[in-house]
Amino acid sequence: MPDAVLRAMHRAAPNIYAGELTEMMPGLVTDLKRVARTDHHVAMYIGNGHAAWEASLSNVLQPGDRVLVPATGRFGLGWGQMARSLGLEVDIIDFGRQSPMDMDRIAEALKADTGHQIKAVLAVHVDTATSIRNNIAALRAVLDDVDHPALLMADCIASLGCDVFEMGAWGVDVMVTGCQKGLMVPPGMAFVFFNDRAEAARARLPRVSWYWDWSPRAHPEEFFQYHGGTAPTHHLYGLRTALTMIHDEGIEQVWARHMLLARAVWAACEAWSTAGTFGMNVADPANRSCAVTALRLQSPHATELRNWVEQELGLTLGIGLGMAEPGDPARDGFFRLGHMGHTNGHMIMGLLGGIEAGMRAMKIEHGPGALEAAADVIAGA
Amino acid sequence: MPDAVLRAMHRAAPNIYAGELTEMMPGLVTDLKRVARTDHHVAMYIGNGHAAWEASLSNVLQPGDRVLVPATGRFGLGWGQMARSLGLEVDIIDFGRQSPMDMDRIAEALKADTGHQIKAVLAVHVDTATSIRNNIAALRAVLDDVDHPALLMADCIASLGCDVFEMGAWGVDVMVTGCQKGLMVPPGMAFVFFNDRAEAARARLPRVSWYWDWSPRAHPEEFFQYHGGTAPTHHLYGLRTALTMIHDEGIEQVWARHMLLARAVWAACEAWSTAGTFGMNVADPANRSCAVTALRLQSPHATELRNWVEQELGLTLGIGLGMAEPGDPARDGFFRLGHMGHTNGHMIMGLLGGIEAGMRAMKIEHGPGALEAAADVIAGA
Amino acid sequence: MPDAVLRAMHRAAPNIYAGELTEMMPGLVTDLKRVARTDHHVAMYIGNGHAAWEASLSNVLQPGDRVLVPATGRFGLGWGQMARSLGLEVDIIDFGRQSPMDMDRIAEALKADTGHQIKAVLAVHVDTATSIRNNIAALRAVLDDVDHPALLMADCIASLGCDVFEMGAWGVDVMVTGCQKGLMVPPGMAFVFFNDRAEAARARLPRVSWYWDWSPRAHPEEFFQYHGGTAPTHHLYGLRTALTMIHDEGIEQVWARHMLLARAVWAACEAWSTAGTFGMNVADPANRSCAVTALRLQSPHATELRNWVEQELGLTLGIGLGMAEPGDPARDGFFRLGHMGHTNGHMIMGLLGGIEAGMRAMKIEHGPGALEAAADVIAGA
Amino acid sequence: MPDAVLRAMHRAAPNIYAGELTEMMPGLVTDLKRVARTDHHVAMYIGNGHAAWEASLSNVLQPGDRVLVPATGRFGLGWGQMARSLGLEVDIIDFGRQSPMDMDRIAEALKADTGHQIKAVLAVHVDTATSIRNNIAALRAVLDDVDHPALLMADCIASLGCDVFEMGAWGVDVMVTGCQKGLMVPPGMAFVFFNDRAEAARARLPRVSWYWDWSPRAHPEEFFQYHGGTAPTHHLYGLRTALTMIHDEGIEQVWARHMLLARAVWAACEAWSTAGTFGMNVADPANRSCAVTALRLQSPHATELRNWVEQELGLTLGIGLGMAEPGDPARDGFFRLGHMGHTNGHMIMGLLGGIEAGMRAMKIEHGPGALEAAADVIAGA
Repeated sequence: MPDAVLRAMHRAAPNIYAGELTEMMPGLVTDLKRVARTDHHVAMYIGNGHAAWEASLSNVLQPGDRVLVPATGRFGLGWGQMARSLGLEVDIIDFGRQSPMDMDRIAEALKADTGHQIKAVLAVHVDTATSIRNNIAALRAVLDDVDHPALLMADCIASLGCDVFEMGAWGVDVMVTGCQKGLMVPPGMAFVFFNDRAEAARARLPRVSWYWDWSPRAHPEEFFQYHGGTAPTHHLYGLRTALTMIHDEGIEQVWARHMLLARAVWAACEAWSTAGTFGMNVADPANRSCAVTALRLQSPHATELRNWVEQELGLTLGIGLGMAEPGDPARDGFFRLGHMGHTNGHMIMGLLGGIEAGMRAMKIEHGPGALEAAADVIAGA
Repeated sequence: MPDAVLRAMHRAAPNIYAGELTEMMPGLVTDLKRVARTDHHVAMYIGNGHAAWEASLSNVLQPGDRVLVPATGRFGLGWGQMARSLGLEVDIIDFGRQSPMDMDRIAEALKADTGHQIKAVLAVHVDTATSIRNNIAALRAVLDDVDHPALLMADCIASLGCDVFEMGAWGVDVMVTGCQKGLMVPPGMAFVFFNDRAEAARARLPRVSWYWDWSPRAHPEEFFQYHGGTAPTHHLYGLRTALTMIHDEGIEQVWARHMLLARAVWAACEAWSTAGTFGMNVADPANRSCAVTALRLQSPHATELRNWVEQELGLTLGIGLGMAEPGDPARDGFFRLGHMGHTNGHMIMGLLGGIEAGMRAMKIEHGPGALEAAADVIAGA
Repeated sequence: MPDAVLRAMHRAAPNIYAGELTEMMPGLVTDLKRVARTDHHVAMYIGNGHAAWEASLSNVLQPGDRVLVPATGRFGLGWGQMARSLGLEVDIIDFGRQSPMDMDRIAEALKADTGHQIKAVLAVHVDTATSIRNNIAALRAVLDDVDHPALLMADCIASLGCDVFEMGAWGVDVMVTGCQKGLMVPPGMAFVFFNDRAEAARARLPRVSWYWDWSPRAHPEEFFQYHGGTAPTHHLYGLRTALTMIHDEGIEQVWARHMLLARAVWAACEAWSTAGTFGMNVADPANRSCAVTALRLQSPHATELRNWVEQELGLTLGIGLGMAEPGDPARDGFFRLGHMGHTNGHMIMGLLGGIEAGMRAMKIEHGPGALEAAADVIAGA
Repeated sequence: MPDAVLRAMHRAAPNIYAGELTEMMPGLVTDLKRVARTDHHVAMYIGNGHAAWEASLSNVLQPGDRVLVPATGRFGLGWGQMARSLGLEVDIIDFGRQSPMDMDRIAEALKADTGHQIKAVLAVHVDTATSIRNNIAALRAVLDDVDHPALLMADCIASLGCDVFEMGAWGVDVMVTGCQKGLMVPPGMAFVFFNDRAEAARARLPRVSWYWDWSPRAHPEEFFQYHGGTAPTHHLYGLRTALTMIHDEGIEQVWARHMLLARAVWAACEAWSTAGTFGMNVADPANRSCAVTALRLQSPHATELRNWVEQELGLTLGIGLGMAEPGDPARDGFFRLGHMGHTNGHMIMGLLGGIEAGMRAMKIEHGPGALEAAADVIAGA
């Protein structure tokens, strides 16, 4: 989280009837859409990623509708589970925890749905749990190829502002994200982007709940409608600052920076993988996210490593999510590295250096040369 | 908003897997319940007051259920409107914009419901729009007298931590509030408190949506369940600080402070009312909120006054809410004073002094002696 | 202190070798000089007002030199005392605690100094202790009339950015101030402005101590010279923000605002003075500062009042400074109101309202109508 | 600089007459002395390190007095230069830029001063420019051995709270430091510690300037005396927080942490030194500071490296100070790494990793294995 964002949020309660805050809204909407690469609509919510999931589903689907969920990790499964809680029929194709979506299997499922019962495909772009990045453009091509009218809904919670994403060019109908990753603002806001086709689906529903209804949020006549009541005043100042930072750098440059840093992380991880049990969860770089990297170490080494770097270096590594059930000792064999948002080569070298030190401290076998390999990538900046 | 709260929120992203943040949760829950005066349960949401409304309804009611809404302002009507958007049948008793609920009329309506179709009564404790404070304990007595099993649901968004409220002693089954008024934290969190009776109603529902479901939030097994996904990390630090301030002062002392300051505001307003068109919206002090005061001035004087104090003094007064339709020139005849949260006699005297100056500047006729009357009340602190 | 200033200071350690911080220095110097209304030079010091006093004396005077100190309060006397600690011969003309400088007496003293032993006149523009504002332009006229070459040195610690001050037009040779009053930055920086005539005096000294020497600070070749070593990095960001605020408003408008608010304070104080022992220290408004107002109340009422408003309202009033010796019970008969810097009619009405409440609470007799009189002044904004 | 320190400084102007701020002073004095390991006295100044230099000299020496300056870098020379500006006679023994003080040469000089003209020895503990750490305890032994009464004055600006320092046990009479290095507060305060022997020297002086006089600051009767006028209110809150952090960790543990991190830096630097022109300024680890490391690279590689890591990684490396004259191209052959204050193994690995990347980017020849060598040291934490 950038200092400038936190600084912008440290302020007295602003005027919510007129003036600076209300006047900044149209520009905020424009700049959010520039990050998502869409000319269509965005609805803002006070909420987290799960709120965005529920909001998106609530605007285009009703109990009894069927959705297809090609899952590549806990978050894909989770979105499906949420759909069920809303009374939807959910078809899951589970691609496991190490592979991206197989487009052929999805094509088959869609072709089999000759009656077009499937109203939407819920696709996680980057599943934070597994760090798999799916090819959303290819998924659109599948839908087009089989001429299936289902809405393409993408979860970019972990990827927006990190991995390349082109909502318009890729034909995504609905996209959800949160403010706390690539948008670099403390958790507390979520966003649902949607195109005219999704808006038409919304119009066909008999009823959408007041809070989730995206229409007044995307087309407000009064300020309070942007956020369905009280506005998240301080977050809006943080978001304004973060969007300015992103567009000052340039979204394409932001993507390039994340790619470079991800390549540095991968270079280190590949070196570490040459001995011992260290392993990257996703074998093919083409399927890896630039925002997060899921890793394996023989249990309980992953947890031991996380604990050491937390206690000795004040460095928090992500836990493995959805890789093993609670209570299963295998849980201590997974961890994740975040490399998203306001980060740079200095921070990444610190992260990797901390892990190298931790593995040495805990006598965890690993291959040599990781840090120099990473430095070499960063040197190419 | 206290400086200490903003300061607490100005920090780097914390560890969300272990340590300080996760360990503070049980105490936060306890301290929230101490403000609400309940021993039962609380579910936290990233959201605003409208989110709390929808969350509360979603946990105890299902489409087709009937609710009774005794409304005393825009927010009572709004909660009813939201209930309709969820597919509920809504019976509104509209007590207008200047009177509190008439318990006899509510008793009649409940008695007439011999089949107990009404599943809940949605009662706004303090309607921010009108500043009417309703007698929630009396409403419980009505329900008991007529032996009606409907749940008593109270909206304390504007009143919690300001006006006396006793969830347990008053027999309130569900209570909703937000963090941004008496709890003194920037907007972004909402809370639903509920007792065992409401929990039993929840258990009878066939389905509750994943995000609104209060069960895992109130009875979490893992940290992420408190907030249905990503936690509002920075708000939690702010809330921790605010709750400590409240309990260090003592909730009863906090109520007494708000009462004193409200009496100072009323004393000034009564003096202003002795000439010209200045008037308080609620005639009887027994029905006035200690958190907000709705006022009238012949249109367009209210708006002229608001504009002058904003431009010349940097002082934002509340607009009239729900007192007239958009486009109706009568709209410029209403305004509101907030006197909730982190405020004291110094700030109240500044607020009132600014209004006195504004009325003089705009040549708005008003009675004399308002500021000295207010100072006299504050002198009794 | 404005929020924006504090926010600007809340940042990680900046690069002190190149970039933003070093590049902002020339503009900072320019904008400081625009506040002081001089085209000449300014030296910055990490220090407080007393540091500026010592710095200014050290650059133009040497042990054995004689200075004339026309004192109108504790701070005038203090500057003289400091001069003595540096080995200077100090002639004090003490005008007491309620009257401004009498230019005739000063003229006499200068005329009597036919040998021009007096090298400088040390004149406090506004003595914070007494709130007397002296006529510095008239003092320059006296020096000119009697054709005395002494340097005119002015202390604007309490007045700069509040009371009208024209260093160039008024012929002031050296002027000292701090950052913490009209410049609205937390205490920690002090400034010595000087013209070419003062610079020539500096050049005639055999030796100036390294830290106090204003030459490298005013004419730096490297960044560290601006501050004689390590720069006050965070204060510089705060100062940058404050200067931008001042010049965005316009220095003349800043003066006008202070005058208006001072007139409101005086109107209230005059009303209070119509009964009981309440009294303003300076009888003639022409001699009162727009930044601070010294007041009297029969001892121990002033202290009782200060204590009540501090405890009950969180409002800190200034103590009487230099009005009575430590241990003398008369000390509890003085207090002061600050109305400088980032303040407006809203805050002033809060301050005055708090005092009105306090006097009522403590049963301190006072005249009526003070708050309405103040509001009437502010209404003229 | 720790977030907690910045957070503590972000506050409205506090009451300076009574309450929290004034009450915290005695504890602050105690905790400062615990860092310096002395039971004697401390005077606080709003100022930087140069202010502390001038303050210390002004309290124990007068024009014409002689001092001995054993210099090991620009800061030793600078203190001597300042002494000259105060009219002192200064004997410099210059040990160059790569060697610590040679105690034998100092002993000779003292022995030669049979008349005890030398009133003080000005010794820099760690010269930030060269990163040489001198043996202050050995210097005391020399003074004792030759039975010379000169005061032992130490500059710990760069070392206090980083390198082991024992003011009491080592027999240091006067010690100066600033708040911005080991004390982790933004620049703006300076400290002079002194023992009874130095106080006696102060008492013998005919005159000490008001601002520099340490007596009222160390033995204040009123709050304003602590800081010779207006207090640095916000810095005091920051300092309070920093001292609490230091003593919560434990000063000996703070020293051990700095030693560990310094060893990691040295390990990397030694590896880099095995090829090309990379070199550490101080050959013997026993003479190296734990707070800063001065380095060499064939000109202009050092500057190229600094520029690359600044631009690409946002990482600021220190410039070489006093290693070559302005304009000499040799200047671009020096740089420095700071590793003091609020730092840990994570940050150090980031720093070193950034340098590795920079040398690769700029094709600067260097030895291999630096990062792994550093990680190995940190693993021993």
